Amino acid sequence: MAKKEIYLDHAATTYVRQEVLDAMLPCMTDIYGNPSSLHSFGQRARKALEAARASVAASLHARPEEIFFTSGGTESDNWALRGVAAAQGSKGRHIITSKIEHPAVLNTAKDLEKAGFRVTYLDVDADGVVNVDQLKEALTPDTILVSIMAANNEIGTIQPIEELGRIVKAGSKAAFHVDAVQAVGAIEVNLEKWKDVDLLSLSGHKFYGPKGVGVLFIRKGTRIGPMITGGSQERKKRAGTENVPGSVGFAKALELAVAEMPEESRRLAELRDYLIDRVLTEIKGSRLNGHRTKRLPGNANFSFDYIEGEGLLMYMSMRGVAASTGSACSSASLEPSHVLLAIGLKHETAHGSFRATLGKTTTKEDIDYTVEALKDVVNMLREMSPLYDEMKGAERQCTVKK
Amino acid sequence: MAKKEIYLDHAATTYVRQEVLDAMLPCMTDIYGNPSSLHSFGQRARKALEAARASVAASLHARPEEIFFTSGGTESDNWALRGVAAAQGSKGRHIITSKIEHPAVLNTAKDLEKAGFRVTYLDVDADGVVNVDQLKEALTPDTILVSIMAANNEIGTIQPIEELGRIVKAGSKAAFHVDAVQAVGAIEVNLEKWKDVDLLSLSGHKFYGPKGVGVLFIRKGTRIGPMITGGSQERKKRAGTENVPGSVGFAKALELAVAEMPEESRRLAELRDYLIDRVLTEIKGSRLNGHRTKRLPGNANFSFDYIEGEGLLMYMSMRGVAASTGSACSSASLEPSHVLLAIGLKHETAHGSFRATLGKTTTKEDIDYTVEALKDVVNMLREMSPLYDEMKGAERQCTVKK
Repeated sequence: MAKKEIYLDHAATTYVRQEVLDAMLPCMTDIYGNPSSLHSFGQRARKALEAARASVAASLHARPEEIFFTSGGTESDNWALRGVAAAQGSKGRHIITSKIEHPAVLNTAKDLEKAGFRVTYLDVDADGVVNVDQLKEALTPDTILVSIMAANNEIGTIQPIEELGRIVKAGSKAAFHVDAVQAVGAIEVNLEKWKDVDLLSLSGHKFYGPKGVGVLFIRKGTRIGPMITGGSQERKKRAGTENVPGSVGFAKALELAVAEMPEESRRLAELRDYLIDRVLTEIKGSRLNGHRTKRLPGNANFSFDYIEGEGLLMYMSMRGVAASTGSACSSASLEPSHVLLAIGLKHETAHGSFRATLGKTTTKEDIDYTVEALKDVVNMLREMSPLYDEMKGAERQCTVKK
Repeated sequence: MAKKEIYLDHAATTYVRQEVLDAMLPCMTDIYGNPSSLHSFGQRARKALEAARASVAASLHARPEEIFFTSGGTESDNWALRGVAAAQGSKGRHIITSKIEHPAVLNTAKDLEKAGFRVTYLDVDADGVVNVDQLKEALTPDTILVSIMAANNEIGTIQPIEELGRIVKAGSKAAFHVDAVQAVGAIEVNLEKWKDVDLLSLSGHKFYGPKGVGVLFIRKGTRIGPMITGGSQERKKRAGTENVPGSVGFAKALELAVAEMPEESRRLAELRDYLIDRVLTEIKGSRLNGHRTKRLPGNANFSFDYIEGEGLLMYMSMRGVAASTGSACSSASLEPSHVLLAIGLKHETAHGSFRATLGKTTTKEDIDYTVEALKDVVNMLREMSPLYDEMKGAERQCTVKK
């Protein structure tokens, strides 16, 4: 019998769905020309690329000339920050972001600090929602960029992007960048409604598209320099031979994700709530990280008293459940999660979270299996924990005293 | 009957060969985890990625920890220049490159000039070979980087990389970067022999690998900063979820290209020489651009008196022959080729080149067809050219006078 394997790490990455693969393959073997070539091979590739661009624009309610293909969400985030800094650095030297952004934004902001920019890192509340008043106060005539993610990758909290956009535009001339890598396909991302969003980052492999391809939406009129220079691809803004199969796959995956979103998000939110309810009810000393309702439909993030996250993950993996302690991007580091620290968790608790992110193949049976495994593993780990022993001893004493 | 189509633009891009596709597909649908994830899905992906890295290292005679995957040749070139400038800019402010580099190097060098770096652009001789004496003279204690391509993308001229490396190291402490995007799979690229090369750029889609993936080789000890920041992927040097299928495809394509190189290069060089001989013999007023022998086996680049390149290309395309006027990367621009200007062609001639780059599917019949088509089209275009009329008139007068 094959070992049971349940994948609950869809926020880290997803498989490429068959429809996407079917769209990509002809661009690898047949329509393989370089879109910059003037001959028929090149022009067929150009046509495929521009159809992909138009499709992405339609999915996001944007214009094709506002869609720029990149190598992924991280490049898109880097480009948004570095590109605005390069183009508008003479106009202003202040950038605002939040304490719970993805490392692609946070580490880039830190780099820009070294280059002489001033960066404000906004606080979030205990649910992970950005402090709106602090944003209002932080905006100055010197502010050139505000970068806030649409939904957090670790705890799933969704930010009020429309409201934040209005505040940014009312209080400054800053460009507003939104990392929507986790949001798209999970909640509505509509750039007509999000009219104050000037820049938006997306990554293909988060919604059953290919790895190695992303998009930066750049609203018409936004001043941003290139980050990768060379040939005149992508309207002279992003050099390098266009990844035609990747772009075509990205477009197809996005089209399907957006079309299926209303129903799939409802299904996932139900499964998520079932998981959350069972864990909080059946496992003592458990807490949910992130907002109870304003959270990604597929995201559940728990902390368990007296439990170290890494160990929990390993034992769950041995039971066939693939989850995560936080984001995959920072899993190699031993630092506690900056997101969990920002929502007020103590240092030791910020080490101990368990993130389960649900996706297309997730069933109720998977959740049931996961909860049972989690109960066993949490119990077992607590039995092994000296801290838990002390706590139990203290409890017993209390009981005796009563 | 399907229209005849002959692809002679392999320097622009190639199709993905079946063996590469076969290697990539499992990484899209099955081994799809995020290599940074600690669970079994992630670790299987990590294993595939590291096997790819080891394979690339073996193909290049380098070490796995010196291989960094990027989104392509352009990113690799940008990273080499910008990364060394960032890490060593306090040590020195001088960079040396040549006048015939790819735009990914030249335009990045121009960007660095704006940031306060001094750049020397070396001349090349009439064959496109870098001026070695000028390099010796240009090196100073302030020089932090020398960037010279292994083989030119337009005219195919191969540079004496070993000799250049010795000169760089004898005369400076500069890092030596080589853009080998066109060279690899066509000539030997061996980083044990090229021991003075510190940085080397490669692009997958030039040797029947996937688009959207490249490599930067960074020799151990070379001081270079990251260009794309965020998560701690690629030993904290290149952030972003790793493109596992792309990297696996890159490795497979490189392995095959290197293994088949000796025989395939001999075959292509024969076809190339046959093409060159026939054109120079059978078409009056034709010249070969680039070195006669020290050139890429698959590259032929011609100029024809009184012929404008764009028109030639269009008519050849109508005859089913897909070639190029120069590089695909600059085809959208109306500027004459900087490479042809650098080897001394006049402005009007630099507009008029015809680049045919041969590849795996190219046959002798393709070359025969191409030569016949070329003869027809060149004749036809010359008949239409007022300049040619004048010239013929002058010739006739001369004949009459005799």
